[in-house]
Amino acid sequence: MAVGKAVNRVDAIAKVTGRARYTDDFYRPGMLVAKYFRSNIAHGKVTRIDINKARSLPGIEAVFTFEDVPNIKIATAGHPYALDPSHKDVEDKLMLTRDIHHLGDEIAVVVATDEFIAEKALSLIEVEYEEYEALTTAEKILAADARAIHGGTGNIVGEHQYECGGKLADAFSKSDLIHEGTYITNMVQHVHIENHTAFAYMDDLKHIVIVSSTQIPHIARRIVGQALNIPWGNVRVIKPYIGGGFGNKQDVILEPMVAFLTARLDGRPVKITLSREECMLCTRNRHPMELKVRLGSNKDGTAKARHLEVISLTGGYASHGHSIAAAAGSKSCLLYPRMAQGYHARTLYANIPVGGAMRAYGSPQIIFAIECAMEEMARKLNIDPVEFRLKNAAKQGDINPFSEKPISSCGLIECLEKGKKLIQWDDKKIEYANHKTGNYRKGLGVACFSYGTGTYPVCVEIAGARIILNQDASVHVQTGATEIGQGSDTAVAQMAAQTLGIPVETVHIVSTQDTDVTPFDTGAYASRQAYVVGNAVFKAATQLKRKILEFAALLTGLEAQELDVASGAVVHIKKDGQPVISLKDLAMASYYEKDKGGQLTADVSHKTTTNAPTFGCTFVDLTVDVALCKVTINELYNIHDSGVILNPIMARGQVEGGVAMGIGAALAEQILIDSTTGYVYNNNMLDYKVPTFMDIPDIGCEFVETVEPTASYGNKSLGEPPIISPPPAIRNAILDATGVAINELPMSAQVLFRHFKEFGLI
Amino acid sequence: MAVGKAVNRVDAIAKVTGRARYTDDFYRPGMLVAKYFRSNIAHGKVTRIDINKARSLPGIEAVFTFEDVPNIKIATAGHPYALDPSHKDVEDKLMLTRDIHHLGDEIAVVVATDEFIAEKALSLIEVEYEEYEALTTAEKILAADARAIHGGTGNIVGEHQYECGGKLADAFSKSDLIHEGTYITNMVQHVHIENHTAFAYMDDLKHIVIVSSTQIPHIARRIVGQALNIPWGNVRVIKPYIGGGFGNKQDVILEPMVAFLTARLDGRPVKITLSREECMLCTRNRHPMELKVRLGSNKDGTAKARHLEVISLTGGYASHGHSIAAAAGSKSCLLYPRMAQGYHARTLYANIPVGGAMRAYGSPQIIFAIECAMEEMARKLNIDPVEFRLKNAAKQGDINPFSEKPISSCGLIECLEKGKKLIQWDDKKIEYANHKTGNYRKGLGVACFSYGTGTYPVCVEIAGARIILNQDASVHVQTGATEIGQGSDTAVAQMAAQTLGIPVETVHIVSTQDTDVTPFDTGAYASRQAYVVGNAVFKAATQLKRKILEFAALLTGLEAQELDVASGAVVHIKKDGQPVISLKDLAMASYYEKDKGGQLTADVSHKTTTNAPTFGCTFVDLTVDVALCKVTINELYNIHDSGVILNPIMARGQVEGGVAMGIGAALAEQILIDSTTGYVYNNNMLDYKVPTFMDIPDIGCEFVETVEPTASYGNKSLGEPPIISPPPAIRNAILDATGVAINELPMSAQVLFRHFKEFGLI
Repeated sequence: MAVGKAVNRVDAIAKVTGRARYTDDFYRPGMLVAKYFRSNIAHGKVTRIDINKARSLPGIEAVFTFEDVPNIKIATAGHPYALDPSHKDVEDKLMLTRDIHHLGDEIAVVVATDEFIAEKALSLIEVEYEEYEALTTAEKILAADARAIHGGTGNIVGEHQYECGGKLADAFSKSDLIHEGTYITNMVQHVHIENHTAFAYMDDLKHIVIVSSTQIPHIARRIVGQALNIPWGNVRVIKPYIGGGFGNKQDVILEPMVAFLTARLDGRPVKITLSREECMLCTRNRHPMELKVRLGSNKDGTAKARHLEVISLTGGYASHGHSIAAAAGSKSCLLYPRMAQGYHARTLYANIPVGGAMRAYGSPQIIFAIECAMEEMARKLNIDPVEFRLKNAAKQGDINPFSEKPISSCGLIECLEKGKKLIQWDDKKIEYANHKTGNYRKGLGVACFSYGTGTYPVCVEIAGARIILNQDASVHVQTGATEIGQGSDTAVAQMAAQTLGIPVETVHIVSTQDTDVTPFDTGAYASRQAYVVGNAVFKAATQLKRKILEFAALLTGLEAQELDVASGAVVHIKKDGQPVISLKDLAMASYYEKDKGGQLTADVSHKTTTNAPTFGCTFVDLTVDVALCKVTINELYNIHDSGVILNPIMARGQVEGGVAMGIGAALAEQILIDSTTGYVYNNNMLDYKVPTFMDIPDIGCEFVETVEPTASYGNKSLGEPPIISPPPAIRNAILDATGVAINELPMSAQVLFRHFKEFGLI
Repeated sequence: MAVGKAVNRVDAIAKVTGRARYTDDFYRPGMLVAKYFRSNIAHGKVTRIDINKARSLPGIEAVFTFEDVPNIKIATAGHPYALDPSHKDVEDKLMLTRDIHHLGDEIAVVVATDEFIAEKALSLIEVEYEEYEALTTAEKILAADARAIHGGTGNIVGEHQYECGGKLADAFSKSDLIHEGTYITNMVQHVHIENHTAFAYMDDLKHIVIVSSTQIPHIARRIVGQALNIPWGNVRVIKPYIGGGFGNKQDVILEPMVAFLTARLDGRPVKITLSREECMLCTRNRHPMELKVRLGSNKDGTAKARHLEVISLTGGYASHGHSIAAAAGSKSCLLYPRMAQGYHARTLYANIPVGGAMRAYGSPQIIFAIECAMEEMARKLNIDPVEFRLKNAAKQGDINPFSEKPISSCGLIECLEKGKKLIQWDDKKIEYANHKTGNYRKGLGVACFSYGTGTYPVCVEIAGARIILNQDASVHVQTGATEIGQGSDTAVAQMAAQTLGIPVETVHIVSTQDTDVTPFDTGAYASRQAYVVGNAVFKAATQLKRKILEFAALLTGLEAQELDVASGAVVHIKKDGQPVISLKDLAMASYYEKDKGGQLTADVSHKTTTNAPTFGCTFVDLTVDVALCKVTINELYNIHDSGVILNPIMARGQVEGGVAMGIGAALAEQILIDSTTGYVYNNNMLDYKVPTFMDIPDIGCEFVETVEPTASYGNKSLGEPPIISPPPAIRNAILDATGVAINELPMSAQVLFRHFKEFGLI
């Protein structure tokens, strides 16, 4: 069985030997370089722009400003598309703009023969602004006299509320205890290794080809078509290997512009590569949120009611906008499903960098608030925090109060029990009771999460797979699911091998997506791929196997239903699996028999109309150096119920990466924004601190394997979830160690110092 | 109706604006250049080779000799493959060789950082030979003591004979008149604009990617797999636009070597581009043949019996070898099918450049002999040559004596009648009777041909097509059929548009074949593509249309069989074609409806088990300047029965190109070989004379449209046939003008001088 095995990544050798090709490795003769001229204010309007000097610089091929681009506002969010107009993303982005919405907004673009000339030309552009007050905080944004950042009816991009799982007011009134708290999460960035880069060219005067580092080639095709108002079929997007995305490449940032430029420049190839500084300032970030939690519980530890009041800042453009607060709100209902739950969220425009999709799509913010509040409540109830969670945690058979459908698989309780044991919770609780004073204080923390797999029923969940049987009995598999470093190509190879009954080594994966020929799939996001494409691969492999067996029946005169594929041959089921014809001989006959057969392929497009719930938790053991405000993680366990684990090595990789990213968000990372001017202080890797190898402890990674009935291979999401619960677990452990509740992220040394000082610790 | 319209080529703009990319336009960083070290003798053996100086030249990355390559002999002919071992091509080619079979044979290869260093390295290789007698003529080759060029049992690569259409000896004995003649055709070359070029690289240590100017990417994949003894699925061949092939790129010449080199050089990209001189000396050429014809006829002009005795020289390697003499022999049976026919052909190795596939694959040689003999017989019978042909020409309902199956469509008689009228045959016959003396003599000539469409039943005829419905109601079509300049992409677009009921402008063709993802097809040869892929496109388009109508039924609640596609909409057949849903709305729903649909595609592999007969003729009116031995063509008409004409402009293009090539072969072109040494005198474009625009008259091009019942679109071959009948028609017109029968090709000034002198004309 190929699924479940620690198969090596199919792209391992290509990647470790440097052979794998990324967007920047492709070259077209005569490729031009474009660079953006960006605003150096956060809010205002261009009153004068003079590009004449720039345009006359030798080596400059063109300069375009907001006056030259189509007057079409687009939504850049990488959502599939909605036939229902009320469900469409907010269309607020012009390719170049006179109106400035955040620092670094795109005003003009220069196209040059090389990047040095382009840089020089940028310095020759003269611009004058009318500057407005930078609206950087919810208070300023929601002020009655606040300027509407995008005009129209104001600064609220989206707002919604729900109540589920019973009457909320009743449940609160029947609760023995109420806890209220406010939690703040700040802006962090994905910091993928490969910056955004894309180039475009035309081989004729009709079709625009775009090569891009994107998670969502088919969506990018659609948005380019919309942005340029050309038929979508005239646009071709090619996605080579990409060096990480984490959601930031689930936005269509550069593709419309390179497409516009090549179209305006007679099909010549034009490339844009963002610098790290541009990437951090002008792509997307995690929405900062303010979350007020109200939690009610009975004395026995039965949680009764919870309400969340959320304000999320989406920055200068809507991008994924309110979807993030909305999606995370609904996914959190699963975690403790047997209580009444209320949710009210508003997403606001702000003159700060743009928020977008980032690993776990809002859940890190929502779950941080929920799990901080749970900790506080456990302490008020004087119940062990693990016990309090065990008592309220989702179980198989519970009803998801939001969807009102049964939870199809759930191993959360087993995750908690496993983590508790691994970290030796009870023993350490006793031991650490002696470490709550002095400079070095030790604490234990726990936090849980729930998540979904894919976006159904909010968005369409569609994936395609095409499988070809080669002459040598190997297969080629094409999927629209995109390998972005997470290992989806390898998972697909395992799935196809398993269902076809062939060795995984004989599965060749076509890794590059090309919207002209790749089966349609909306791309890598929402931890959807192994789930949704898994269902498509299963269907395609099953169909191909049926064709193989039917052809074998034709060749041998046996009945197809008596046959199966095993060990490189078609075998007879009834006759002890005796080989009837080798798969290679059958494949050769399919191609080369003169009067029968044909190349055997299966080409499947499949819509998955389910969504699988995922659960897990983090346990942390840490030491706080109070004087230095320094946190040292001694042990950390992330335990996941992600259904069947397709590949243990790759699964561990996802967990290790997610936890590291979670530790960064917990303890160090923050995009620092001047609240008066909207200026960003640290959009670079010197001043924005991502954890290095030296900062990350050994990560304990364990799985509780359930079998998800809606997945062809029993699997559920794993790409995003590992990032969710580490920050609240660390926060809860710091609280355990020091008695200080840090209700904001990141819990950097500066923040700890402020809190410790306030609390009288230092 | 898209089929039959003079639709512009889909690649017209890309090609005329220089945007279309050919193999040489692709670049990989660090690409190395390889060049062959070739023998400067035609027959012998390397006794000593010293590559040390070459290897130590700075910039040389590697030098490989015959000692380094796999000891695997391959067949380079671009035939699909045969499961029947007795039907396999002759495997006689090592990638590099110690034994020399023709001038320019490949002994070693140098790999350098640039071509200048590579050239320099070639000059540093020292080699000594044991030289053998060059066997350049049938007489020498068949001599009892002749050395076997490839060892083994001698120099006959293939031999076969057949008799059909009645007892041959009886038919001859019952004939009133017998004509016997010997006809010689010499070696000519394809002279495609783009020389052979290919490069290869590895993105991992498993898969070899080859980009090549080839007519047959899927076959090249198979042969590379065989040559390197690796699984075929590990080989990927990509074919960009190519600058002509005419059969010469239906041989696998460079692909195994570039694949070998990248594999040996750690996956680094390695390219080989042949010079024009190498291309003319060391790729493939048209087999020179000696053809003895015996023709019997009754006095009334009823041809009774014909026998051909053929010797064909395949040069230093078998390549397509005997297939050419065999295929052309069987295709010629159709032309005058109501007589007894005999055929005996032998194909011989020779120490001359290698013969291979070239436009019309042996028929130009065979038909030249047949149509010269027919002319002579008409003169002996004192019957007008057109009348003689009309009397014996194939008609609808005749039985193909070779296959013993009815001729499925035939417009030959109409072609003859049309040509006769166009050239004003009868009037000019009278007029030109006064121009048979003096220096300027005028004459009329006619010649017919028959041909097939594809290779069935000799080879498998398989083609694939995949069609995707895009969101904008356009479609993308992938076929394995290769655009090599002949216009197949455009024909496929027309076919798909017609069957789907959509405008041809909304059909996007994926022109680049990529064996990893392109539906399997054996490639461009045998004028097969529009016929074989047409059947596959029809099947795929029909299947996609059915899916469209079924989805429309699902959306609307109507019955699928009441619906059709027309004018960009699904329409109701019974209600006067009233639109029910636009194709665009349907397409959008297929992608974006949450609970139904899916990307609509059809992926079809189809084996065609028929072969369509094609006919036509050439009429020529020319003037011979006896003193200058110069022929001026006054008028020339090629009239073809190619079934339904898919695209009149493109069809005319094929005819004009083919006739020009035929005029070149008739009057000027010949690869000159020293019969003593095997040395080639004119493998360059200065000394080998291809006709230019100035040498070609206005070409009259007409069609007699029949409807071929075995073709989905009624079409038959047209790519190759136009080249066949011009040379004998010109020869017959020269005979008519001067009374001199030139029984050899080319009829260059030198040859005419020799004949005219012999005949006493000068």
